[in-house]
Amino acid sequence: MIKVSVMYPNTPGARFDHAYYRDVHMPLVQQRMGERCRHYTIDRGLAGGQPDAPATYVAMCHIFCDSVAAFEAGFLPHVEEILADIPNYTDLAPLIQVSDVVVG
Amino acid sequence: MIKVSVMYPNTPGARFDHAYYRDVHMPLVQQRMGERCRHYTIDRGLAGGQPDAPATYVAMCHIFCDSVAAFEAGFLPHVEEILADIPNYTDLAPLIQVSDVVVG
Repeated sequence: MIKVSVMYPNTPGARFDHAYYRDVHMPLVQQRMGERCRHYTIDRGLAGGQPDAPATYVAMCHIFCDSVAAFEAGFLPHVEEILADIPNYTDLAPLIQVSDVVVG
Repeated sequence: MIKVSVMYPNTPGARFDHAYYRDVHMPLVQQRMGERCRHYTIDRGLAGGQPDAPATYVAMCHIFCDSVAAFEAGFLPHVEEILADIPNYTDLAPLIQVSDVVVG
């Protein structure tokens, strides 16, 4: 199992609509990817590791797939539609990472 | 539910022993925290979001707890022992974030 982590930097003054992300954007991703997206999780950043430190990321999602090939097969046919929805909830550019799920 | 994400930057030349992290360090954290750690996950970074881009983090773990207070109650009594184990698997300083689990 792999996960694709999409991490939105917690930039002061930036816009991020958590409700839209939870209720519209990520369900859209799941619907378009179908079975290729086994499940996904969403985090909302609360704090950093030191007292009073801000969270590094204002929000993160993690998309779980059987393989990188499965992710690409599910995501790439819909990439234009999914990317076009991003301005509806944020003006941030996310950082993306693919990881092997060692303990899931 | 909250999660504490511990993210190790993928610094060229740095040391990270994934087997020790999976087999020794994180089981130690779970054992010491007991029920306060509901569960944890471990990721091993594979790639970044662009072709041939490296992963931002060489490894991540996410510790799931009922609340920030529950995390602190489980972790702080053992913080010295847990931090003292870090040099056994890495010379990296992790970035830490606390998040609300919006979709788990």
